[in-house]
Amino acid sequence: MGKLLIVGSVAFDDIETPFGKSDKILGGAGTFIGLAASQFEVKSAVVSVVGDDFPQNYIDLFTERDIDVSGIEIVKGGKTFYWKGKYHNDLNSRDTLITELNTMANFNPVVPDEFTDADVVMLGNLHPDIQTGVIDQLKKRPKLIIADTMNFWMNNTWDELMKVIERIDVLTINDEEARQLTNEHSLLKAAAKIQEMGPKYVVIKKGEHGALLFHKDHIFFAPALPLEEVFDPTGAGDTFAGGFAGYLAETKNISFESMKNAIIHGSNLASFCVEKFGTERMLTLKKQEVDNRLLQFKELTQFNIELT
Amino acid sequence: MGKLLIVGSVAFDDIETPFGKSDKILGGAGTFIGLAASQFEVKSAVVSVVGDDFPQNYIDLFTERDIDVSGIEIVKGGKTFYWKGKYHNDLNSRDTLITELNTMANFNPVVPDEFTDADVVMLGNLHPDIQTGVIDQLKKRPKLIIADTMNFWMNNTWDELMKVIERIDVLTINDEEARQLTNEHSLLKAAAKIQEMGPKYVVIKKGEHGALLFHKDHIFFAPALPLEEVFDPTGAGDTFAGGFAGYLAETKNISFESMKNAIIHGSNLASFCVEKFGTERMLTLKKQEVDNRLLQFKELTQFNIELT
Repeated sequence: MGKLLIVGSVAFDDIETPFGKSDKILGGAGTFIGLAASQFEVKSAVVSVVGDDFPQNYIDLFTERDIDVSGIEIVKGGKTFYWKGKYHNDLNSRDTLITELNTMANFNPVVPDEFTDADVVMLGNLHPDIQTGVIDQLKKRPKLIIADTMNFWMNNTWDELMKVIERIDVLTINDEEARQLTNEHSLLKAAAKIQEMGPKYVVIKKGEHGALLFHKDHIFFAPALPLEEVFDPTGAGDTFAGGFAGYLAETKNISFESMKNAIIHGSNLASFCVEKFGTERMLTLKKQEVDNRLLQFKELTQFNIELT
Repeated sequence: MGKLLIVGSVAFDDIETPFGKSDKILGGAGTFIGLAASQFEVKSAVVSVVGDDFPQNYIDLFTERDIDVSGIEIVKGGKTFYWKGKYHNDLNSRDTLITELNTMANFNPVVPDEFTDADVVMLGNLHPDIQTGVIDQLKKRPKLIIADTMNFWMNNTWDELMKVIERIDVLTINDEEARQLTNEHSLLKAAAKIQEMGPKYVVIKKGEHGALLFHKDHIFFAPALPLEEVFDPTGAGDTFAGGFAGYLAETKNISFESMKNAIIHGSNLASFCVEKFGTERMLTLKKQEVDNRLLQFKELTQFNIELT
């Protein structure tokens, strides 16, 4: 069992989809990553910041899953990061209606001592200087540092982002952002350019069209499981990343073969996340359900062509 | 070795992509299907119509590959179907600049006697009444009738299209068209509805996002191989269908396991088709290249998760 350090937002989300409204519920990248990773045998911690409006029963959801919360700072008199968004009819795009950074605006992550020698570090989408600040606190180079980012940081903090990207092992990014980051339309070329920037591994997330893993000349692809209905895509990318990081922390095996499995585990967990609002589905998820769906992933992708 | 009957356009294409202009070259669904299927050990025939402006050396390309051309009618004084199109920068969409149906406007396919007992029939995208007319000429129910169609026939010949769809075994269709045909956004639901219309198998083509095969509760997915550069997407869907049909005609095995392999073979061949203008790449393709790329498909998709 490895140690997994997760840094990311713990927040309130308020989501509207064509199927309904969630009102104010538990959300945030750190939350989704943590819940997904808790499906594996890992010792994990979430580092984040909330206000004292954040309910204790939400904190309990982490501790019940053996997630260390000593790195979640609770700011007295502060308010928790709040995001409100509305998805369009096809669920492939959304409008942000409200973003209140609140305590997240001054997030100064402190890595718990016990996790400064983590095996795997998963840096959720955050200001790149915050991501760098976390790496600086590590007392031992982890086996693997994974970071997520988004177009906002490319547009506003390019130099800071480049400094993080130089120091990480895996960048997770969506397809349009990979194109923006590299000015290459071909994802193969984009992934090659990103590898020149630092990370030896690149994971390109394509939402309902699956995810690609690139490393040197190797490419692996995992589809998203075709579903009857996607109810709420919020957190799917972070759940994917949490499954990926969780599996690698459990196995402490960062070979390409192991990363393939990690990508499948991430895709598998993400397929549950989208079935209900926010974290709802992840909170009831049972190992048997996870395993059954892994079998579906095998049926979906495995074939038997013998080459003569 | 099985018999494969192919019905589809044999035409002139005139293509502009961001990388250049092709001028007037060999094209048409029947052409791409035939060339892809010729990679397999099959006895195949293409049924189509051209004008006497159609060069003999194009006809020779078929006969050199042991494709029966006795069903390609050459109309004296007639002109061959001509399509001119221009792709947008991302190659995912295109404008049709010119469509001259010419001899195709009065296409009255005559199935060569020897192919009225074909094992597999592949009906390229054509007026549904023409597709029906071909089925009516068959003296033996084939193991498998596959048909392609497009939104144009849904918009203009709905009832005729339904009559074909009732009589076929496999419908190949792209994702947006599957949604239009069924009024379902979820491809899983769309495929289920299409199966209720008749075909026991549904292949949904998603272009650069791969292809899905549906049959009852079974789903199989093949990605498109990530490429450095897509040069010209023209014919990729027909090449995919030709590989699919060709493999099934060679093996005469229409189990779901066999169809999975057929989908992979189709995706594999389509990945070559897009590398050059029109049929150019398919005309030089060697078995060793095909096999090498099948290995890449395996690396891209196969993983090893043991469930305990």
